[in-house]
Amino acid sequence: MFTISGNLQGYFRWVQKCNGGLKAKERYHPWSVGQSTIGYLQPWLFQKLKGEFPNVFKVLTKPEALDGLALNDQLSTCEDRSAALEAVAARLRDDGVLSGWRNELYPVLTAFNSEPLALVERAAAVQLGIKAYGVHVNGYVETEKGIELWVAMRSKSKPTWPGRLDHIVAGGQPHGLSPQANVVKECGEEASIPQELARNARPVGAVSYEEEQEMGLKRDVLFCYDLKLPPDFVPEPQDGEVESFQRLPIEEVANIIATTDKFKDNCNLVIIDFLIRHGFLKPEQEGYLQLLAGLRWGPCT
Amino acid sequence: MFTISGNLQGYFRWVQKCNGGLKAKERYHPWSVGQSTIGYLQPWLFQKLKGEFPNVFKVLTKPEALDGLALNDQLSTCEDRSAALEAVAARLRDDGVLSGWRNELYPVLTAFNSEPLALVERAAAVQLGIKAYGVHVNGYVETEKGIELWVAMRSKSKPTWPGRLDHIVAGGQPHGLSPQANVVKECGEEASIPQELARNARPVGAVSYEEEQEMGLKRDVLFCYDLKLPPDFVPEPQDGEVESFQRLPIEEVANIIATTDKFKDNCNLVIIDFLIRHGFLKPEQEGYLQLLAGLRWGPCT
Repeated sequence: MFTISGNLQGYFRWVQKCNGGLKAKERYHPWSVGQSTIGYLQPWLFQKLKGEFPNVFKVLTKPEALDGLALNDQLSTCEDRSAALEAVAARLRDDGVLSGWRNELYPVLTAFNSEPLALVERAAAVQLGIKAYGVHVNGYVETEKGIELWVAMRSKSKPTWPGRLDHIVAGGQPHGLSPQANVVKECGEEASIPQELARNARPVGAVSYEEEQEMGLKRDVLFCYDLKLPPDFVPEPQDGEVESFQRLPIEEVANIIATTDKFKDNCNLVIIDFLIRHGFLKPEQEGYLQLLAGLRWGPCT
Repeated sequence: MFTISGNLQGYFRWVQKCNGGLKAKERYHPWSVGQSTIGYLQPWLFQKLKGEFPNVFKVLTKPEALDGLALNDQLSTCEDRSAALEAVAARLRDDGVLSGWRNELYPVLTAFNSEPLALVERAAAVQLGIKAYGVHVNGYVETEKGIELWVAMRSKSKPTWPGRLDHIVAGGQPHGLSPQANVVKECGEEASIPQELARNARPVGAVSYEEEQEMGLKRDVLFCYDLKLPPDFVPEPQDGEVESFQRLPIEEVANIIATTDKFKDNCNLVIIDFLIRHGFLKPEQEGYLQLLAGLRWGPCT
């Protein structure tokens, strides 16, 4: 069996890259609903929301920490809070702060499976620094020569991560859909994987991270799935988000991760988790436990 | 495929049980080599070592924290420190503090794969509260009805965990042996698994915890292995530590973990990790992420 030799620094840099937000958060202004801090704002956005939405947010002054915002207590239901945040998101869109509008609602949660405090347009998630969830599917084939992974090349016209490598199927976790149902839906939409195949996707854990991006903090938990595909199955781009699919030997995928920036940042973590679970990395390698721990540096809640 | 339904509280109690040491540590006295804290002592043992070994340990007084001990700086090499700690362990054995003597040396490490600061008799590891490492092997069979796990019943005459259920193969990680070589060795010694089968054991990650036990803190990282066994293979007790082996359907194992105390404490964590990696637990279940995070509550270093 193929195994990866040498130290694991080439992999660990993705743990560091995807968790720059853990340190950067010191420079962000928290915002909350009731007693729960649910997001973090860059200083300019804190000033903008404070100045332009005095009826939505009140200012929380804190000794020895950056000031925060809290949703006005009069917004006492999920519906009220969602309506207020929709107006905020629409303004951010109109002012050119958001790079798009997904028409997809993310729940604002204190923990997965908790009751949503509000629903908010997905395109504003990073700017508002809220916790978000996703599903990533490792679509693989067992051949005589070993495991091969199906990899997508993202469309060069996508607003986010154009031209980067991606999982065969991955997607944000919207409100009102179970992760398993989301996997089946995305399998059909992104790669034309029929339902009867997609239902074989097996949940195998999660990775969590807090990445600093240009527009804010991406604070994610990604549920990981393994989907063993028949050797003769070929995925087909369906919704224009993917330019092409290719099937790569796992050692080639590992080498791409360790030595290049070709994969979309968060895919690296999910594939490193795959490499560990399938025995391609070994405890004997320097940095194994640090790499393993790094897959859930961000709060796994 | 069998899946586990309902909430995961029956599993999560093992995370809590195996991590009682994280909170209890406040009541323990740290001891160190140079600048590195490497162990924790119950108050009575702190007093005993302080009183009886003034040439080995010096006292570190700390404002607003319990006093600590530090190995005397004149013990400047691994050999010197090992010899001093051997004398300490021998005294603890003679005074009835240790429940046995394993004649097996554990390295005293700040992190796995770091240079050992000293070597110390395994039987003193919990009393001295040092970080220790082990290998646990999930030996399983894929049948038409699903996965079955080989489970050992520990000998009722074993000093530790008599009569409890255990992995088919598990062992402490001694100095001077790689985890993989240790797996192969323990496979032969504990279950008569031939080398050519044992070498198929696949490293799949690790769990880490800090458990408070009667005699001190068990601060472990366990490297987890999956070993797929042929349906006709039957393990045989070899070294008297195991009374019998049985092959149980994974749903029965899961039920034992969720509802009884039959398994040796730390085996529960390793098998929960197995259940997650093989898709028997699902993100839809309340407490999934908390359980997942709990598998590495203890420092994974």
